[in-house]
Amino acid sequence: MKTIFNKTRVEAFSDGIFAIIITLLVLEIKVPHLENHAAAGALSTALFELFPKFISWIISFFTVAVIWVNHHKLFKQFRQLDHGIFWWNALLLLWTSFIPFPTAVMGDYPGNITSVVLYGSVMALMAMSFTLMRWYVLRNPDLLEGTTDIRSFRKGTFLSLIFGPLLYLAGIALSLIHPYVSFAIFLAIPVYFIFAENES
Amino acid sequence: MKTIFNKTRVEAFSDGIFAIIITLLVLEIKVPHLENHAAAGALSTALFELFPKFISWIISFFTVAVIWVNHHKLFKQFRQLDHGIFWWNALLLLWTSFIPFPTAVMGDYPGNITSVVLYGSVMALMAMSFTLMRWYVLRNPDLLEGTTDIRSFRKGTFLSLIFGPLLYLAGIALSLIHPYVSFAIFLAIPVYFIFAENES
Amino acid sequence: MKTIFNKTRVEAFSDGIFAIIITLLVLEIKVPHLENHAAAGALSTALFELFPKFISWIISFFTVAVIWVNHHKLFKQFRQLDHGIFWWNALLLLWTSFIPFPTAVMGDYPGNITSVVLYGSVMALMAMSFTLMRWYVLRNPDLLEGTTDIRSFRKGTFLSLIFGPLLYLAGIALSLIHPYVSFAIFLAIPVYFIFAENES
Amino acid sequence: MKTIFNKTRVEAFSDGIFAIIITLLVLEIKVPHLENHAAAGALSTALFELFPKFISWIISFFTVAVIWVNHHKLFKQFRQLDHGIFWWNALLLLWTSFIPFPTAVMGDYPGNITSVVLYGSVMALMAMSFTLMRWYVLRNPDLLEGTTDIRSFRKGTFLSLIFGPLLYLAGIALSLIHPYVSFAIFLAIPVYFIFAENES
Repeated sequence: MKTIFNKTRVEAFSDGIFAIIITLLVLEIKVPHLENHAAAGALSTALFELFPKFISWIISFFTVAVIWVNHHKLFKQFRQLDHGIFWWNALLLLWTSFIPFPTAVMGDYPGNITSVVLYGSVMALMAMSFTLMRWYVLRNPDLLEGTTDIRSFRKGTFLSLIFGPLLYLAGIALSLIHPYVSFAIFLAIPVYFIFAENES
Repeated sequence: MKTIFNKTRVEAFSDGIFAIIITLLVLEIKVPHLENHAAAGALSTALFELFPKFISWIISFFTVAVIWVNHHKLFKQFRQLDHGIFWWNALLLLWTSFIPFPTAVMGDYPGNITSVVLYGSVMALMAMSFTLMRWYVLRNPDLLEGTTDIRSFRKGTFLSLIFGPLLYLAGIALSLIHPYVSFAIFLAIPVYFIFAENES
Repeated sequence: MKTIFNKTRVEAFSDGIFAIIITLLVLEIKVPHLENHAAAGALSTALFELFPKFISWIISFFTVAVIWVNHHKLFKQFRQLDHGIFWWNALLLLWTSFIPFPTAVMGDYPGNITSVVLYGSVMALMAMSFTLMRWYVLRNPDLLEGTTDIRSFRKGTFLSLIFGPLLYLAGIALSLIHPYVSFAIFLAIPVYFIFAENES
Repeated sequence: MKTIFNKTRVEAFSDGIFAIIITLLVLEIKVPHLENHAAAGALSTALFELFPKFISWIISFFTVAVIWVNHHKLFKQFRQLDHGIFWWNALLLLWTSFIPFPTAVMGDYPGNITSVVLYGSVMALMAMSFTLMRWYVLRNPDLLEGTTDIRSFRKGTFLSLIFGPLLYLAGIALSLIHPYVSFAIFLAIPVYFIFAENES
């Protein structure tokens, strides 16, 4: 007998995880320690030195917000959730819940190519989980809502491969020019999703 | 085709983030380290030295609670959520989720003007996100519930600019007298909302 | 015009905060640092030294679970939530969200009377918030469900004063005998609620 | 009069706790500190040294996901929740919320038998809580949905004892061969649940 999951509870569980991750990101930014507690200039300087941490926090914040939007759009197309889709979703949650770590590494080592490779790889794996979940559903089309257009869902799956793992891998490759080029790509990906309003 | 978001899921996602932030605030208050574990007097003294941290925690706790109330009142007036309103809401969540950092800085450097400027600026940006979300809705009035009075919504938007970003900027300016005057303003703003019971 | 809050959203917000606090408690127990990573005996010894932290974690875990149960029982009796009840509830959430701090202090300084006074005082203030919320509702009985028996609600309010703030204050006073007597009281209070199954 | 809990609120409270725990696990992986911030090779090496932490994180991530699935399947069979079932569920939440600690210990001391015993014991206690909750329900069968087959529920309870506490105790015993054998068992248990799709 196949297990059917309660879609509302799986969505609430996933939403809870997304909400916690997006909020935990800021915990990686630590208050600087100064000897002279009254020195306004020294505190300003110390805060400006945290600039790479603020940038990596903002990139990850908008990335997780875009994950939420794409998850929301995808799940709206599902009629019901079986065992398989639950575990492909768990894989997505695994990589998403890992995001605070590469974000913190990128904030601490902004000019280091290893940071770029780590950050881009985790994001590529996260984005790949979306594509894998879509492939699974294409092989089990009875999981989709009756109103879903299979051809446009297949096209969306193909696009999720390009505007996801492949773009993140391209971002990693561009670190050969400069790590900051990669970061610009990593920021551009969620910004594209925010302004494109793509329906798939 | 325009994306329509599930209002209940966006509210639950936002509520989750507010609940996490309000709870994380206390994590910034660290247990003091003492050599003599049995000395009751030394522990009392060490706890009293954390006084500025308790104050900044309480200010931020009530500020986030007021954000929740104002968010709740605002969303009650929305009929549906489109792509634009989702991202203005995400901007509000960005600044709100950042609050634990300036709270911790203010607790560590209570008499430092840089703390005041940082805390007040983050709060002004958070409050400004409310005003921007309202402006967006005023330009897209089909997003409002049919029962909403547009004139009173426009007035509420104007008031949200004054009792929000402008008051926080005034609070920053008053640090020229003394940083503690600013903190009094930052505490007075949520206290005003608690006792005013304004409907807008 | 009086504000009426959406009871489901206030409950979900409160439940979210309770769930986060009960989970954060364990973060205060830090992994011990040893030079020799393979020494099983040294690691066992270091873990046994964390015993007071495990005890204070368990006391606070069951206390927060009892808070959830009592909150759940109380809110079932409310017909609707107004501005006042929201802020009395926020006061309860304030003290509840503070619990990780006195728990960590008690775990670090188990034999120190200051820990006892801090822990007991925070719990007394949290419990007092329940009593204050009940008093507010007694003065605004239109907030109660029609099926609620006012006399039994008044009796429950009186009992909440005794089996709450007064018992915690008694626990503090008993630290004059020994701090561990106080901890036994602080543990006995939630255990009483678990086994008593009191309906009020 | 017996207390009847709102099943939806208890499920939401439990789901919230599961979502928070699964997300907190990654916080135990700390960013390595290097003198030379630009050295890509040194950062790679430092990240590879975190390998045991990544493994223990993944084991615990999938374990908590399996707990969620088993909790979801079990609660679907409950008609209503009384005082007793709430507190057996609270015991499950206690041990589940403790998981970040043994996970961090295992990541820091991967070859240490004490880590194995701690991790396996906490998991055995967590799994035992499932069995105890099932036993309680078997003694109070009016709590089950009318559609539940008591014989298959009894069989599932018996299996939960074997594929739970007993398997974890076996995992601990196998550390006599090598701690890594135990870790393989601790990973195999959730993997078994992921691929077995057992209905009980």
